[in-house]
Amino acid sequence: MQKVCYDDSSLKSLISPDVYTSFADQLEAVETMLNKKTGPGNDFLGWLELPEEHSPSFLDSIQKQADDARQQCDVFICVGIGGSYLGAKAAIEFLSSTFPQQRTPEVLFAGHHVNSDYLKDLLSHIEGKRVIVNVISKSGTTTEPGITFRVLRKWMEDAYGQEEAARRIIATTDPEKGALRKLAERNGYRTFDIPDNVGGRFSVLTPVGLLPIAVAGIDIKELVSGAREAMKYCSGTDLTTNIAARYGVNRNCLLREGKTIEMLAAFQPQFTFVNEWWKQLFGESEGKDRTGIFPASVVYTTDLHSMGQWMQEGLRTIFETFLRVDETRETVEVPHFEDNEDNLGYLVGKSFEYVNEKAYEGTLKAHRDGGVPAATITVADRSADSLGQLFYFFEKTCAYSAYLLRVNPFNQPGVEAYKKNMFAFLGKPGFEDFE
Amino acid sequence: MQKVCYDDSSLKSLISPDVYTSFADQLEAVETMLNKKTGPGNDFLGWLELPEEHSPSFLDSIQKQADDARQQCDVFICVGIGGSYLGAKAAIEFLSSTFPQQRTPEVLFAGHHVNSDYLKDLLSHIEGKRVIVNVISKSGTTTEPGITFRVLRKWMEDAYGQEEAARRIIATTDPEKGALRKLAERNGYRTFDIPDNVGGRFSVLTPVGLLPIAVAGIDIKELVSGAREAMKYCSGTDLTTNIAARYGVNRNCLLREGKTIEMLAAFQPQFTFVNEWWKQLFGESEGKDRTGIFPASVVYTTDLHSMGQWMQEGLRTIFETFLRVDETRETVEVPHFEDNEDNLGYLVGKSFEYVNEKAYEGTLKAHRDGGVPAATITVADRSADSLGQLFYFFEKTCAYSAYLLRVNPFNQPGVEAYKKNMFAFLGKPGFEDFE
Repeated sequence: MQKVCYDDSSLKSLISPDVYTSFADQLEAVETMLNKKTGPGNDFLGWLELPEEHSPSFLDSIQKQADDARQQCDVFICVGIGGSYLGAKAAIEFLSSTFPQQRTPEVLFAGHHVNSDYLKDLLSHIEGKRVIVNVISKSGTTTEPGITFRVLRKWMEDAYGQEEAARRIIATTDPEKGALRKLAERNGYRTFDIPDNVGGRFSVLTPVGLLPIAVAGIDIKELVSGAREAMKYCSGTDLTTNIAARYGVNRNCLLREGKTIEMLAAFQPQFTFVNEWWKQLFGESEGKDRTGIFPASVVYTTDLHSMGQWMQEGLRTIFETFLRVDETRETVEVPHFEDNEDNLGYLVGKSFEYVNEKAYEGTLKAHRDGGVPAATITVADRSADSLGQLFYFFEKTCAYSAYLLRVNPFNQPGVEAYKKNMFAFLGKPGFEDFE
Repeated sequence: MQKVCYDDSSLKSLISPDVYTSFADQLEAVETMLNKKTGPGNDFLGWLELPEEHSPSFLDSIQKQADDARQQCDVFICVGIGGSYLGAKAAIEFLSSTFPQQRTPEVLFAGHHVNSDYLKDLLSHIEGKRVIVNVISKSGTTTEPGITFRVLRKWMEDAYGQEEAARRIIATTDPEKGALRKLAERNGYRTFDIPDNVGGRFSVLTPVGLLPIAVAGIDIKELVSGAREAMKYCSGTDLTTNIAARYGVNRNCLLREGKTIEMLAAFQPQFTFVNEWWKQLFGESEGKDRTGIFPASVVYTTDLHSMGQWMQEGLRTIFETFLRVDETRETVEVPHFEDNEDNLGYLVGKSFEYVNEKAYEGTLKAHRDGGVPAATITVADRSADSLGQLFYFFEKTCAYSAYLLRVNPFNQPGVEAYKKNMFAFLGKPGFEDFE
């Protein structure tokens, strides 16, 4: 069942029909580029059919490892950065209970920055706990996860001895080559493969994301079957049914009309890291050749009390995409108090979600009146099925949108620039002469 | 001792000297508007001298309540939104250990969104724990904290009985009037005053922020004395010493040259909520009259692997302000491994901070080469003193910057727009006819 809806009805009058048509007319070409794999970056289109290609036995094997890990550890530490971090983090935060104390095992992250204070806190936190480390890196030489894994590997070998440490380290890496693959073979770590034709920001439905997500107790078969469902409605050139294409067309229309910032505005706090995952997906796919919408995000109503003023009356260079859950898991109602000192008595018996819904409707109208074009993505519920659909919907939108913008969605040449400087400053062999 | 530095040396060649001079020349007028309180919004300038006006006995009284609370609760729940939430959250996340399990008591937040799932998780988390609730609202009628406080008040009265619940509820509110003041008087809650002349986003050094910060075990006298120190160097019209004025002038120059987005790029994860606090401060102060820089934030190196590509090669409508700590608390060094499979052996014995520093230098150079003007704020360490200075430095910068932009930094007329719609949709008495 389709669990992601995209409502752009309030955008219609704000986009010139001619501009819309000119982009829509090019959709067939883009759809062909994707289906026939003829566009730029076409060797990284593995994510397109991934949800259909995962066999039940493949998912079973991940589930089996995850079940074992859930028995054998209190803390499961993922070592990775960028796409090797954000997908799992987004899924776990969206689908789990709020407080870390409510999660067993705890899935934690490391190697996603370079910070001794964090690392010492982590080492102190895991003291006396049963730990498994999942190091996630295609090459095994990326600086942040690389040096962090050195620290954790040493900690594990000191704590467990070399043999048991090796049993408690899982490497998710290139199927054949690379430093981490070699290290895993030499030391006998269990391994999972990162497919060659899937880039980091599209990797949440590979073992990169699936293993930690399963360890967190989330049903990965449901997640993948959700993505498979979204494959159906996120394809074809009919813009009434293919909501990914429509979202991609709208983004390009709005950019062309001077809206250079997109604000993804979630109405539930559980979306916080879905927002972050989305920013990597779109920022890294489109921010090149001196173009690309700037992806920003907020969580409402929290941030109506911080960025709300700017949204309402600031520079009119922005459009907004709301992101909301239709059915929360729980329902809390506003309780009655005789005194009614706060004048909120008119809400007694109403659910929090009813109030939140009216806040959303009020914001949509207010921002629209203030000159911010807005559309809304609604996800049915906080289920793995819904999230799998949402992931795939965003990925497909991104491909349409970037191809319409005429950039290669699947490379990231600019990410190397700071690294080259950093290597030179660090005196890395081979980079001495780089300036 | 000055613990905040602002290095804009790499900006110099990117800003036209004429533009810089034209803003700098107006600084005297702005300084006078602030000192003589003659500018727009001048009835909200209480934050300017707040750090000097806090008497030792006033801070002692907060500390005393905090010490009692630390004895009497396992969980201290702040109920507030916007400025009644972000300051305390920013300070606690910057100065505390990373993991919630390492914090006693836990300071948690509620009423900063409208979400049953969060609230049910919170209620389940506090079950069997000793709880104190600090409800923070000038009026006591704001919807989000209002309905959340109803739920928590009911929970407290059920758990403790009315009398003990009243002893465990602290209201931070208007000194004289308003719904929460009346409720506190009627029920005998302890209270703290929110000064009339300090707006929400400038309130971190009032009891709004100070009480929860002290409960988290942070030295609030040191925090306030830090702000007092910053008052010295963040004043006067000499742009070589007044770094707040210089930052404010630079922001206006960059906006005038088409840089409509400012990216606050922190290089330590502990800054995550300082970034959020900063976004409210600048977004709400400047985002009006269809102008104002769009404030965005990232945490590096984490987000070099997500927004880094856009920063390097996207639309050139952005400038960047780095935010870094000079001395972390801990030092972890990269350990040696005989195999050196990861080729990171050249970093053995180097501290993580050395690597992070080179990442920062590499990023500064790469982004500058990529057409992003950048400056750097360096904070000496993760101390309350440094953070107090940073808070005041940002607040003063904001005042200079907004006055130079010729907007009123201290109002937020746009925040009402969504509320009016929401009230109408909710059927709030008096809003039936609003459309």
